[in-house]
Amino acid sequence: MKKHNFNSGPSILPATVIAQAAAALHDFDGIGLSILEIGHRTDWFVAVIEEAKLLVKQLMQLNDDYEVLFLHGGATTQFMQIPMNFLAPGETAAYCDNGIWGNKAIQEAGYFGNVHVAASSKDKNHTYIPKNLSLPEKANYLHITTNNTVEGTQWHEIPPTHLPLVADMSSDIFSRPMDFKQFSFIYAGAQKNMGAAGVTLVVIKKEWAASIQKQVPPIMCYQKHIEAKSLMNTPPVFAIYVALLTLRWIIAEGGLTEMERRSRQKADLLYQTIDSLPIFITSIAKEDRSLMNAVFFMKEEALLQPFLKTCTDNGMIGVKGYRTVGGLRVSMYNALPLESVQVFCQLAQNFAHKHC
Amino acid sequence: MKKHNFNSGPSILPATVIAQAAAALHDFDGIGLSILEIGHRTDWFVAVIEEAKLLVKQLMQLNDDYEVLFLHGGATTQFMQIPMNFLAPGETAAYCDNGIWGNKAIQEAGYFGNVHVAASSKDKNHTYIPKNLSLPEKANYLHITTNNTVEGTQWHEIPPTHLPLVADMSSDIFSRPMDFKQFSFIYAGAQKNMGAAGVTLVVIKKEWAASIQKQVPPIMCYQKHIEAKSLMNTPPVFAIYVALLTLRWIIAEGGLTEMERRSRQKADLLYQTIDSLPIFITSIAKEDRSLMNAVFFMKEEALLQPFLKTCTDNGMIGVKGYRTVGGLRVSMYNALPLESVQVFCQLAQNFAHKHC
Repeated sequence: MKKHNFNSGPSILPATVIAQAAAALHDFDGIGLSILEIGHRTDWFVAVIEEAKLLVKQLMQLNDDYEVLFLHGGATTQFMQIPMNFLAPGETAAYCDNGIWGNKAIQEAGYFGNVHVAASSKDKNHTYIPKNLSLPEKANYLHITTNNTVEGTQWHEIPPTHLPLVADMSSDIFSRPMDFKQFSFIYAGAQKNMGAAGVTLVVIKKEWAASIQKQVPPIMCYQKHIEAKSLMNTPPVFAIYVALLTLRWIIAEGGLTEMERRSRQKADLLYQTIDSLPIFITSIAKEDRSLMNAVFFMKEEALLQPFLKTCTDNGMIGVKGYRTVGGLRVSMYNALPLESVQVFCQLAQNFAHKHC
Repeated sequence: MKKHNFNSGPSILPATVIAQAAAALHDFDGIGLSILEIGHRTDWFVAVIEEAKLLVKQLMQLNDDYEVLFLHGGATTQFMQIPMNFLAPGETAAYCDNGIWGNKAIQEAGYFGNVHVAASSKDKNHTYIPKNLSLPEKANYLHITTNNTVEGTQWHEIPPTHLPLVADMSSDIFSRPMDFKQFSFIYAGAQKNMGAAGVTLVVIKKEWAASIQKQVPPIMCYQKHIEAKSLMNTPPVFAIYVALLTLRWIIAEGGLTEMERRSRQKADLLYQTIDSLPIFITSIAKEDRSLMNAVFFMKEEALLQPFLKTCTDNGMIGVKGYRTVGGLRVSMYNALPLESVQVFCQLAQNFAHKHC
């Protein structure tokens, strides 16, 4: 049976990327060795990581004011590493509290300095994006999570700020064109729109990294990673290679404009279907709905398990909501074909008609 | 041309492991999804990580006093994470200074507390293992690097100590039976004897982890990783799967006793050949020679490039010495077949006869 993969991450990858990655496991680029067996300082791998960096800059339209790093760990490691570098005791950083992941970032930051909550959607269980930020005059940076994977909300407009802007883009990176120059620091775990779990993309304004005065353990110091060109120690070679393949795929398919067009098409179909079927409810503010993760519930809780079973029986993976939220979540990352959303919507309609 | 892969890491993997990993990229375990596309909290992946943990304990003959973790980052991340957890300002940890990696561990520890150097081989350029340790009465732990990848030395006897013993086994893990119960903490980057780059094995005595009093940022806290069963955030799924395949391979081939037998056979052949050919010299103390990485030089520096070219021309990869050391390094990890060492030795003999 054909599988439709709505996983929230690790999630679906383009079929061509998987085929190319598998081929490179057998023989990387015709050199007679597996991609898993080559040294990270060989010309072979240096070409991989350098091309990947270049494609990131190309997609983001960034110049040499920025450095691209591929670091170990997930975005959660960055929750800690960012304040470890940019926040000292007695200093303040501003954070938007819009969901579980932003919240975890706040918790990690608390170990290094003061956190000023610039905006919170906690009052309504993170079902919307608060538009009015309260920013302190002086803070080291403002941190936002551009897409809230768990709650299903997304910043469709990036808030203006006088502070260096830091963005966790783990679940919507490379899904839309944007003025990336407004950010001082962008990061994203790879396992949604950019490849396989095990590497995190960091895009950092060099000037900001160079301004760090804090004593930071070398392996966590961004400035040292920049100097070492992202090769301070053995990097996650295979995960970086899969990221390169995915970046090439995005560009070949038409870049960020095309990714956004597809995302809107998929999300529009899904939300229209959900809205039209009274067995589903969603409390997410319409204008803040995520194009990546649609979060909704069965009006009658008793129908959840039967619906989930129908999904599984029809080859649909990953439709169950996040463990602390419940309900349903349909993730529609770049690699998810429109067809999968169409099949899901058809199934939802059939199920609704049967249970009305 | 057949390739002989003497890379120091990322390095050669068993052919069956690569074939199985490539098959799982197409379709993991017949479920119709790639290993890159499955969620880390699915039953599928939980079975992978749980089996991998079990096999580590089986190979090390450890009971439930120990926890096995598969963490993001390389061993270098552990250089920082260990003192971040176990060393506070004003406290002391003891370190053996036996090579470049142990030295990096010392540097990272210095950011968290005092370092007492218990033994150093710096006086002779790290060409031997110092047997007499000067241990302070009170220190939080003693750190050793069991095999020095760059310098080509290895602790063939683990030094006795009253302190909790922490070992970086990145380059000789699972290459020999050992009383693993003497350690409170073992870690190893996967990319030599245990799989692909992008994951680090940590084996930790639960009692010791539970004793941590320090406030540690959650994502870096071992105790929290233990509580979350190594799934605090999205782990490096594919790298853990390759580790599982490699662990299965080690066991199927006969376990640590067999790995040691093979290592001795390969290393004996190599060192005997080097010792018998006057064009090569090595300054490593004979009794401290590494079974994993043989480091040696050409007596006449002018012959180095011609010899390296001969190696490359004959399909030999990774024979060049570490960038700060120079000369030659032949790495003979578990997956390297005896045949590769035989071919290298034959080539070395032919080259020597031509240039004598």
